[in-house]
Amino acid sequence: MSLDRMIEGIRRTGNPTVAGLDPKLSYIPAYIREAAFAEYGETLEGAAAAILTYNKGLIDALCDVVPAVKPQAAYYEMYGWPGVKTLVETIAYAKEKGMFVITDGKRNDIGTTMEAYATAYLGQTAVGSQMLTAFGGDALTVNGYLGSDGIRPMLKVCQEQDAGMFVLVKTSNPSSGELQDRTIDGKSVYRTMGDNCEEWGKELMGKYGYSGVGAVVGATYPEQLSELRAALPHTYFLVPGYGAQGGGAKDVAGAFDKDGLGAIINSSRGILCAWQKEENCAPEDYAGAARREAIRMKEDITSVL
Amino acid sequence: MSLDRMIEGIRRTGNPTVAGLDPKLSYIPAYIREAAFAEYGETLEGAAAAILTYNKGLIDALCDVVPAVKPQAAYYEMYGWPGVKTLVETIAYAKEKGMFVITDGKRNDIGTTMEAYATAYLGQTAVGSQMLTAFGGDALTVNGYLGSDGIRPMLKVCQEQDAGMFVLVKTSNPSSGELQDRTIDGKSVYRTMGDNCEEWGKELMGKYGYSGVGAVVGATYPEQLSELRAALPHTYFLVPGYGAQGGGAKDVAGAFDKDGLGAIINSSRGILCAWQKEENCAPEDYAGAARREAIRMKEDITSVL
Repeated sequence: MSLDRMIEGIRRTGNPTVAGLDPKLSYIPAYIREAAFAEYGETLEGAAAAILTYNKGLIDALCDVVPAVKPQAAYYEMYGWPGVKTLVETIAYAKEKGMFVITDGKRNDIGTTMEAYATAYLGQTAVGSQMLTAFGGDALTVNGYLGSDGIRPMLKVCQEQDAGMFVLVKTSNPSSGELQDRTIDGKSVYRTMGDNCEEWGKELMGKYGYSGVGAVVGATYPEQLSELRAALPHTYFLVPGYGAQGGGAKDVAGAFDKDGLGAIINSSRGILCAWQKEENCAPEDYAGAARREAIRMKEDITSVL
Repeated sequence: MSLDRMIEGIRRTGNPTVAGLDPKLSYIPAYIREAAFAEYGETLEGAAAAILTYNKGLIDALCDVVPAVKPQAAYYEMYGWPGVKTLVETIAYAKEKGMFVITDGKRNDIGTTMEAYATAYLGQTAVGSQMLTAFGGDALTVNGYLGSDGIRPMLKVCQEQDAGMFVLVKTSNPSSGELQDRTIDGKSVYRTMGDNCEEWGKELMGKYGYSGVGAVVGATYPEQLSELRAALPHTYFLVPGYGAQGGGAKDVAGAFDKDGLGAIINSSRGILCAWQKEENCAPEDYAGAARREAIRMKEDITSVL
C-alpha cells in the first residue's frame, strides 16, 4: 500500500536511483537487432524480440546495484502489441530479479476507467473465476489533471496490492511551466498538485514516513525540488532529468531528506547508451557499460547526500 | 492533418455521435464469453477473444449509422498484451468498415517520448527498412498538463498522417473542477487549456473551419460547453458524459455551431449495454439493440440542432 518495498531496495543497494528502460532501436547493439530480424524479419515482432533481449541483458547487469527500473510505456507501444508483450515480459523479468518496477505510463482517467488502468498496471484482472496479472508492476506514474476522481481508484488498488503511484507535479521539460508554474490563489499549480499528493497519501502511509503517493519532480528545476521537499514531507519524489536532460548531482541534492531518503533519481539514456559513449566499448559489453555508468551515477549522487 | 475526415463522416451519416467501445466483460453476452473461454480457457487470451467478437458485431451493426468509434485503451490494457492485440484488431476492423477511430488513451509525455506515442497511435514505426503500423487510429486523446512540449510532437505526426487529437480541457467528472475550474490571472484553467488548443490548432487547419486539435469537454457541464464553443471557434469538441453520466440532448446543444458542426457526442455504456436494458432483447440481438440505441441517440441529439 506504499512505496516501502522501493525504499527497502534503495537501502539494500545504497543507491537512490532507477534505470529508465526507454529502449529505442538505435540504442540496441546491431548484433542483437540483426539476430532478432533474422528470426522474425523486420517486423514489430522482430523489434520487440530485440528489445526484450537487450532489456534482459541490462536487468541482469543492473539488478544487484540498482534497486528499480522504470520502463516507459511509449517505447513499447510504438511496436504495437508485440512491443506491449515485451513490456509485460520485461516487468516480469525485472521483478524475478528482485527489482522494483515503476511503469511510466502517465495514465489518467476517471471512475471505472481509471480502475481499469490501476487493475492493468498494479492489480489483478478477473476473467471468469480467475484472477490474472495483466502487467504486474509495483508502481505507476499518473497525471492528476482530472482531479481526485482519477486518483481514488488508484488508492484502492494500491492498498490491496501493496503498490504505489507517482503523480506528475513539476515535470522536467522546458514548457512545464506553461501551466504548472501559474498561480492559483497565491499558490503555483505544481504546489497545488503536490499538496494533493500529501492529502491523497494519507490513506497509504508506509513505515518509513512516506506514503504510496509519490510525485514526479524534474531534476531540471532544483529550486522547486527543494521547495517541494520542504513542503511535502510524506511524498517520495521520482526525479527525471538527471544526465541527458541536463540535471546534475548538485541539482538533485535538494530532493533528499536528511536521511538520504525522499527521492529516487532516474537515468534513461545515460545508462542505456553508456556503451555508445564509453571509449573502445565493444557492443557485446553494452550491459557492462550500463553497469559501470549506474555505479558512477550512484557515486555521483550519494556524494551530495 | 485535421479532423476533416471525421467531419465528412458526420455529414455523410447526419450523425454527430461516436460509439465508445469500453468493453467490460460484464457487458458481453454470456454466449460470446463462453465460446471464447471454451476455446482459450479463462485466460487473458480468452477475454481478449470475447471482446474482439463482441466489438466486431457492434461495428458491423453501427458502421452505416455512426461515423466513429472511440475505444478506451484502459479496457484493453486490463487484459494485458492479448487485450492490446484486440485493441489493434478492433481499430483495423473499424477502419476497414469506414469508421473514424478515436483512440481514447489520454496519453501525455514530452519530446521523443511523446513522439513515440504519436507514432504508436497515429503514425508509422520504422523497423529496419520497413515502416509499420502499430495501432493505426485516426485521432488520439491527450492530456496537456506538461505544456507545449507534450503537444508539438503530436502536431508533426498529425500533419504527416492526416490525423488529429483531442486535448483534455474540461472533463465530465464531478472532481474535474478541483484543478480545471481554478482561476489563473482571471481565466479558468480549462479556458487556458482551451485557448492553447486554438493556438496549437493553427498549424493543423482543415477545410471546414476546424483544426486537427480538438478538445474534450464534458456534457455534464453545459454552461462551460457554451462558453467554450463561443471562445474556441476552430476547436472541435469531443463530448463525453451523455447518457449514463447524466448529460442529455439539451445539455450538449451548446457544443454545436450554427451549422450543426463543432461537436461529436460520445455514448459508451448506453450503446454497449442497450441489449441489457431493452425489454425482451435476446442476447444474440445485442448488436441490433446497440444500433437501435445509436439511432435513438442520433434523433435525440439532432432534434436540438
